[in-house]
Amino acid sequence: MKKALFIVFLSLLHSTVNYAQEQKTAEDAFFLKSIHDVALTQGQCYSWLEHLTGEIGGRLAGSPQAAAAVEYTRQMLDTLGLDSVWLEPCKVPHWVRGDKEQVKIVNSASMGSMELKALALGNSAPTPQAGILAEVLEVKSLDEAEQLGKAGQLTGKIVFYNRPMDPTQLRTFNAYGGAVDQRVNGPAIASRYGAVASLVRSMTTKLDDVPHTGVTVFDTDPPAARDRKSGNTNNTPTQGFGKAIPALAISTNDAELLSKLLQQERIQIYVWTNCQKFADKTSYNVIGEIKGSTHPEEIILVGGHLDSWDVGDGAHDDGAGCVHAMDVLQILKRLNYQPKRTIRCVLFMNEENGLAGGLAYAAASNKKNEFHLAAIESDAGGFTPRGFSADGDNSIFTDRFKKVIEWLPLLEAYDLRFSKGGSGADISPLKSQKGLLFGFRPDSQRYFDYHHTADDTIDAVNKRELELGAAAITSLVYLIDKYGF
Amino acid sequence: MKKALFIVFLSLLHSTVNYAQEQKTAEDAFFLKSIHDVALTQGQCYSWLEHLTGEIGGRLAGSPQAAAAVEYTRQMLDTLGLDSVWLEPCKVPHWVRGDKEQVKIVNSASMGSMELKALALGNSAPTPQAGILAEVLEVKSLDEAEQLGKAGQLTGKIVFYNRPMDPTQLRTFNAYGGAVDQRVNGPAIASRYGAVASLVRSMTTKLDDVPHTGVTVFDTDPPAARDRKSGNTNNTPTQGFGKAIPALAISTNDAELLSKLLQQERIQIYVWTNCQKFADKTSYNVIGEIKGSTHPEEIILVGGHLDSWDVGDGAHDDGAGCVHAMDVLQILKRLNYQPKRTIRCVLFMNEENGLAGGLAYAAASNKKNEFHLAAIESDAGGFTPRGFSADGDNSIFTDRFKKVIEWLPLLEAYDLRFSKGGSGADISPLKSQKGLLFGFRPDSQRYFDYHHTADDTIDAVNKRELELGAAAITSLVYLIDKYGF
Repeated sequence: MKKALFIVFLSLLHSTVNYAQEQKTAEDAFFLKSIHDVALTQGQCYSWLEHLTGEIGGRLAGSPQAAAAVEYTRQMLDTLGLDSVWLEPCKVPHWVRGDKEQVKIVNSASMGSMELKALALGNSAPTPQAGILAEVLEVKSLDEAEQLGKAGQLTGKIVFYNRPMDPTQLRTFNAYGGAVDQRVNGPAIASRYGAVASLVRSMTTKLDDVPHTGVTVFDTDPPAARDRKSGNTNNTPTQGFGKAIPALAISTNDAELLSKLLQQERIQIYVWTNCQKFADKTSYNVIGEIKGSTHPEEIILVGGHLDSWDVGDGAHDDGAGCVHAMDVLQILKRLNYQPKRTIRCVLFMNEENGLAGGLAYAAASNKKNEFHLAAIESDAGGFTPRGFSADGDNSIFTDRFKKVIEWLPLLEAYDLRFSKGGSGADISPLKSQKGLLFGFRPDSQRYFDYHHTADDTIDAVNKRELELGAAAITSLVYLIDKYGF
Repeated sequence: MKKALFIVFLSLLHSTVNYAQEQKTAEDAFFLKSIHDVALTQGQCYSWLEHLTGEIGGRLAGSPQAAAAVEYTRQMLDTLGLDSVWLEPCKVPHWVRGDKEQVKIVNSASMGSMELKALALGNSAPTPQAGILAEVLEVKSLDEAEQLGKAGQLTGKIVFYNRPMDPTQLRTFNAYGGAVDQRVNGPAIASRYGAVASLVRSMTTKLDDVPHTGVTVFDTDPPAARDRKSGNTNNTPTQGFGKAIPALAISTNDAELLSKLLQQERIQIYVWTNCQKFADKTSYNVIGEIKGSTHPEEIILVGGHLDSWDVGDGAHDDGAGCVHAMDVLQILKRLNYQPKRTIRCVLFMNEENGLAGGLAYAAASNKKNEFHLAAIESDAGGFTPRGFSADGDNSIFTDRFKKVIEWLPLLEAYDLRFSKGGSGADISPLKSQKGLLFGFRPDSQRYFDYHHTADDTIDAVNKRELELGAAAITSLVYLIDKYGF
C-alpha cells in the first residue's frame, strides 16, 4: 500500500515536473513570439538606420561623420529609458581618401589608354603629385609574390593581386576569408620587395564595375588588424611588412580585363591618389545598458561597429549591426522585460581599420574585473536571420555550448540555428573572460555585392529582414538572461 | 568454431553494408556539390531571366509578350540537347488593362481632390467612358461585406476592402493567404449586393506607394481560380458571385489615408478604367524532357509558370521559376547525368488568371495514363533556398514522405529542409496520380515587396540567390531519380 502510494506520489511529481517544464517552454515560446511581433511592428532599427545612412553617411574612424554617429546614437539610446548611457574614449587612426583616385592603363597596344574603376585601400600611401607610372605584374597569392620578390622581380613594379573569391562556396564569408589575405597583406609584401604600388582585385564573387575598398596593413599600422582581417595568422611576410605604398582595389571586371591584356602584352599603369594619414584622434564607443536585477555582475553584451568605410553609407556594414543592438534594448524595454543580468549595447568604434574600440573596451572591462557571460556581435549585414555561430575559450566552451543547444527547439521556429565558429572582431578580445561569444549569422548571399562599396546604402536593406535580425538577437539575449549557462 | 566464424562473417557483412552505405552517401554528397558548383559557375538561369524580363517583359496570358515567351523558352530548351521539346495547347482568357486607370478622391473637406495609386485587377470590368463617381464604404472582411450587403447598404457604393496582411507572420505567404480573399472574392460579393465598383488594399505588408494587381473573380470567370487563389473554399458568397464590376487595387499608403479620411467624413471617389475582356485565345505550355533510361514511365516534373502580370517584368513571379526549371535540365546535361526516370520541364501558361495550362496539362497527362512520380513547382521567387514543402494524396503521402526525409542529412548541408503543406497551383491537379508534389520554398521576406507590381524586374533578383534555387531543385530531382519512393 505504502509502495503503491509512493508510486502515485512519484508519478504525480513526475507529471508536475513535466507540466512545469511544458509551462516554461510555452512561456518562452510566447515571449519569443512577442519579441518578433514588437520587432516587426514597433521596431526602430530601420528608422535609425535611415538616419545613420541618409543623414550621416559613410563614417570612417576620425571623420566628422563618425563623430556625428557617436552623438546621434548616444542621443537615441538616451530616449530608451536605460539605466545608463555613456561614451568610452579610444584613440583611432585617421586616414583620409582625399580626391578621386586614378588608375589608368596607358598606351596598351590592343586597348589604348583606359581608366579603371578603383578605390584606394585604407592605410594606402599617396602617390607623388605627378602620380606613378610603372609596369604591372600579376600574381595569384602572397606566396607567389614572396617568391618573385626574393628573385628581385617586384622591384619598381605595380604588383596586381588577382585571385578571385571562390563563387562555389555556399557561405560567402568563407570565400572572402579565402581571398582577403591579398588585400590585407599583399601590398605590404609587394612593398617589402621594392614594388612602387599595388592593385588588388575587389573582394566580391560578382563580376561588375564596382570597386570594393577595405583595410590594408603596412609596417607602422596597428598589428591587431593584420591577422584578424586576413583570417590567417600565417601571412606574416618572411621578411617583415614593408612601408606604406599606394595600394588600390580595382573592380572585378577591370581585374579580368587587365589579366587578359597581360597575357598578350606588357602593361603600364598610371596610379594617382592623394590619400593621407593624419595624427590619431580621440573617438568613442557608445554604450547603454539595463542593469540586471539579480545578477547585475553578469553582462550580456550586444554590439556592432559604428564606423564604416567612407564610400557608401555603411548600411549593411555595419549600420545594420548597430541598430540591431540598439533595438534589442528598445524591444526589451517595450515589453517591460526586467532582466536578471545586465544587458549592455556597445557600438564599437574603428573596427574597419584598427579595432581601437574593441581593444579599448576589453582593456577597460578587464581592469574593472567585469565578466561578460555572453557577447553577441552583429557584423554580417541586415539580411534574413539564419542563426548564430558560437565561440569561447576551450576550457569552458563545450559545457556552456551544451546549454545553448537546448534552446534550439524554441529558436528553430524562427529558422535560427547554431554553429561553432568565430563571433565578431570587436568582441573577440573578450574571449579571455571565459563567457560565450556569438556572431549573428544572417543569409550571406548578397553581402559581398555591397561590402565596402558605394552601393552599401539603405536601398540595399530590406526592412523586414533587418527587423527579423533584431528579433533573433533579442530572442537569444532573452534566453541567455533567463537561463544562463 | 563454426559459431565464431559465423560471427566474423556477420560482422564482415555488416561492415560491408555500412561501407556500401557510406560510399553511396559520399557519392551523393559529391554529386550535390557538383550540381551546386555548376549552378554557381555555369548556370544559365540568370541570363535567360535577363532576356525574359528585359527583352520580353510582362506576359499576361493572351498577350503578344506571352507568345514571345513561349517561343523564346522553346528555342532555349531546343539548345540543351534534350530528347524532346514540344508545345501543348490550352485556351486562355484574354484580359487587357488598356490605358492608365484612375482612382481619385473628389472634393474631400480636409484633402480636396487627390489621385490614388491604383491598378485594375485582372477580370475587372471597365467603367463607363465618363467613369464612376460614388461614395466609398470601407469593410474589413467578406463577412462584413455580406452583412452590409444583406442590409442593403452596398447599393450604389464603391466597396473598399482594407484588412491588412499581418506583418507578424514569419512566413509572408501565410500573411498573404490571410488577406487575399478580399482581392479574389471581395469585388464579386460587392457586386452581388449592388456596389458599382470595388477597391482593394494592395497585398503587401509594406507601407508604400506601389499598387499590387492580381486576379479577381466574377460570375463568368473560370471557377478554378476562385478557391485556389483565395486559399479558402468557404468564400463562396451566400448569394453567389456577382457580375463583373470595376475592381482596382490601391497602394497601402493610399489605403491608410483613405481609411483615416473615412473616419472623419464621407468620401466620394472617381474611378475610371477601360480595361477589357476579349475572346479566349490559344496559348501553350512549353515542355522539354530527358527520357529515363530504366523507368521512363515514371516522370519527375519540374516547373514554373510562364505567364505573369502585365505590369513589371514578372521576374520573381514567375520568371524565376521558369528559368529554375530550365536550368535543372541544363545542369544535369552539363554533368552528363543519365537519369533512370524521365525528367520533364514544364513551363505552364495562365497560372495568374485561369490556370488553363495546369488544367490542360493534367487532363492530357491523365488521358495518356502517365504517372508523375514527383512534380516540383518553383513559384515563390528567386530568393535564397530554404527547402521544399511536400504534398500528396492521403493514401500514399506518409509512406513516400518517409523516404524523402531520409535525404535530409544530404540537403541540410545546403540549408534545405522539408515541410508538409501545399506545392504549386499548376501541379496541384496532378495530385490524383498519387505521386508526391513539392513546392520550392525560398526565403519569403522580400517576395511581397514585388509581387504583381511594376517593381518585379531583374533588379529585384540576386544572381547567386537565383542560381542556388536551381541547384536546390536539381539536387532534389537527382535524389528522387536515383532512389525513388
